[in-house]
Amino acid sequence: MNIDLHLNKIVLGIDIGGTNTAYGLVDRYGQLIYRSSLPTKSEELPEQLFMHLLIDIREYLVAHPKYVLMGVGVGAPNGNHFSGEIVNPPNIHWPTTNLVNLVQQHIDTKVQVTNDANAAALGEMQFGVAKGMQNFIVITLGTGLGSGIVLNGVLVYGSDGHAGEMGHIIAVPGGRLCNCGRKGCLETYASAEGIRRTVQELLSDDSSPSNLRGMDFGDIDGKVITEAAEKGDVLALESFRITADILGRSLADVVTLLSPEAIILFGGLAQAGKVLMQPLQESFEKALLPIHIGKVQLLPSGLKAGDAAILGSAALIWNEL
Amino acid sequence: MNIDLHLNKIVLGIDIGGTNTAYGLVDRYGQLIYRSSLPTKSEELPEQLFMHLLIDIREYLVAHPKYVLMGVGVGAPNGNHFSGEIVNPPNIHWPTTNLVNLVQQHIDTKVQVTNDANAAALGEMQFGVAKGMQNFIVITLGTGLGSGIVLNGVLVYGSDGHAGEMGHIIAVPGGRLCNCGRKGCLETYASAEGIRRTVQELLSDDSSPSNLRGMDFGDIDGKVITEAAEKGDVLALESFRITADILGRSLADVVTLLSPEAIILFGGLAQAGKVLMQPLQESFEKALLPIHIGKVQLLPSGLKAGDAAILGSAALIWNEL
Repeated sequence: MNIDLHLNKIVLGIDIGGTNTAYGLVDRYGQLIYRSSLPTKSEELPEQLFMHLLIDIREYLVAHPKYVLMGVGVGAPNGNHFSGEIVNPPNIHWPTTNLVNLVQQHIDTKVQVTNDANAAALGEMQFGVAKGMQNFIVITLGTGLGSGIVLNGVLVYGSDGHAGEMGHIIAVPGGRLCNCGRKGCLETYASAEGIRRTVQELLSDDSSPSNLRGMDFGDIDGKVITEAAEKGDVLALESFRITADILGRSLADVVTLLSPEAIILFGGLAQAGKVLMQPLQESFEKALLPIHIGKVQLLPSGLKAGDAAILGSAALIWNEL
Repeated sequence: MNIDLHLNKIVLGIDIGGTNTAYGLVDRYGQLIYRSSLPTKSEELPEQLFMHLLIDIREYLVAHPKYVLMGVGVGAPNGNHFSGEIVNPPNIHWPTTNLVNLVQQHIDTKVQVTNDANAAALGEMQFGVAKGMQNFIVITLGTGLGSGIVLNGVLVYGSDGHAGEMGHIIAVPGGRLCNCGRKGCLETYASAEGIRRTVQELLSDDSSPSNLRGMDFGDIDGKVITEAAEKGDVLALESFRITADILGRSLADVVTLLSPEAIILFGGLAQAGKVLMQPLQESFEKALLPIHIGKVQLLPSGLKAGDAAILGSAALIWNEL
C-alpha cells in the first residue's frame, strides 16, 4: 500500500442539528482538515442545505487535489441506518427524506446515515475514550437523551435501526408526560429539558431562596442551572441531585442487562462536570447489582466538544474502512 | 467432506439444575441420540456428579463407535462463559468450580460453559423458533427470571460474562426484597416464586373466595396457580394479570433499548399458556414506544420442554462448528 495515498484519505462528516448543521473533512486519525457549518432551516427543504454544503466541499476538494474522499457519514436526529432516511426529526419540519440519495445526487461516494447518538458512539470508539473497548454505551445528554450501544465491538441497530432509544425507557412509572405520548420517560428527567422541568417543580414546591427564582423561566437552561449549581445555589444543586438519582438508577438497569465496561456521557448537559458526575457516580454505584459494583466506568466524552458530532459522523465511514 | 462422518458428529449437552442434571448427545439437527439424568446433590462435590456422568457417556460412545464427540456444552446457573466456572450457584452448595477442567479430566474435547438462559437462547437460535433471527431475547421463567440476548447474530456476554441479568432490573422501585439484597427486582414479581408471592399478597389483601385459600402456602406453586387460573379462579387470574403487567412493561423497556424482532418465553412458568400470554401481550403492546408497536413478536419456546435445556447446552458447541 502507498503510504502517501493512505494518509490523504478523508471522510466527510455531517452533523445535522436542530438549528445548525456542522460538517468537516476528517482524516483517519480524527484530525479535522476542514470545518464549516450552515444554518438548518426548517422552512427550506433539505435539498437546499445539502446542495450548498456539497458545493462547498466539492470546491475544497478541487482546490486540494491531494485528498481522496472515501465517503460521507451523516448523523441526524431520527436518522435510520437501514433506510438511509431522516424520519420526522424533532424540531426540524422536514418531510421524510432519503439522505443517501440526497448526497449521491452531488457526489458519487459511499454514504452512511445514523442518528446522532450512534454517531457519537462510533466517534468515541474510533477517536475518543472508547478506543479498544468492545462493550460500551454512549449517552447523549442534550435537549433530549439518546444512546448508542456497542456490544462485541459492533454498534447495535436492532432489527429495524431503532435500538438505543434509552431516553424512552420508563424511569418513573406514571411520571412526567413525554413528547412520545407516554409517561415517565427517562429523558423527561435526565436531559437539559428534564432538569429545567425539575427546577420548575422545585421552584413551585417551596419558597427557599435561589438565584433561579427571579429569572424568566424561558431563560433557564442547562447552562444557567449548571452555573448556579457551581456557585452553590441549593435549589440548582438539588435539581442535579434529582437528575443524577434517576439517571444513575436507569444506567444501573442497563448495566444489569448488558454489562458494558464503560458508560460515556456526551453532549451539552454532560459538560456540567462535577455537579452532575459526583451525585451520578454515587447513585449509579448504589443501584448496581453487587457483581457489577466497581467494574463499570462512568466517563465524560473524549472528543473536543465542538468537533465531536462531526467526528462521530465521519466515524460511520472510518469504522468500515 | 465425507457425508457419513458429517452426520455422525455429536455434542454432549449438560444442563445442571437445582435438583437434577439432565444430559444428552445431540446431533446437528437437534435430535437427541441419547438422554439421561442424575440427581444434583448439594452435599456432594461436583467432581462426583461429573465423574458418573462422563463414565456413562464414555460407555455409550465406546458401544456406538460411529459417533464422533465434537465437544461438551454445559449450561449451569451462574455459569460464566469467560472463566468456565460455576460461581455461587443458587440452591446448589458447591464451591466455585471450573467446569471446563472438570470435563477435560475425563474427556479431552472442546468444552463451553454458560448460564442456563444463554444456553436457552443459543438453543432457540440453533434448533428452535429463533432460527434465522439476528436480534432476539429469550426470557427464562423458572424459579427466577433469566435472559439470553442475541444481537447482530451473536450472544451478548458483556464485558465480564454477566450480561442478561434481566431478572434484576428494578421493575418496581422500592418494591419486594430480592435475594440479591436490592428491592423491586423483576424476578421478585415475574417468575414462579414471584407469582407465588403475588398470590400470597392477594390472599392477605381481602377475603374473596379462591380455591387457593384453603391450601398450604408451601403447596402453592406456578403449576397450581396456572391450573386454578385455567379453571377461572379470580384470584389466580388476577395474579397472572399483575405478573403480566409488570413483565410486559419491563419487556417494553428492553425493546426500547435493543429493538429485537422477537422475545421468546422459555421455562416452567412460560408454559402457563393463555392465562399468561394474553394479558402479557396486552400490557407489552400498551407499554411499547409507538415506533415498535406491532413489530416485536412474543413467542413461546420452540423446543420440546423436557429436552430444551440439553439442546441449548449442546448448541453452545454446535453454534461454533
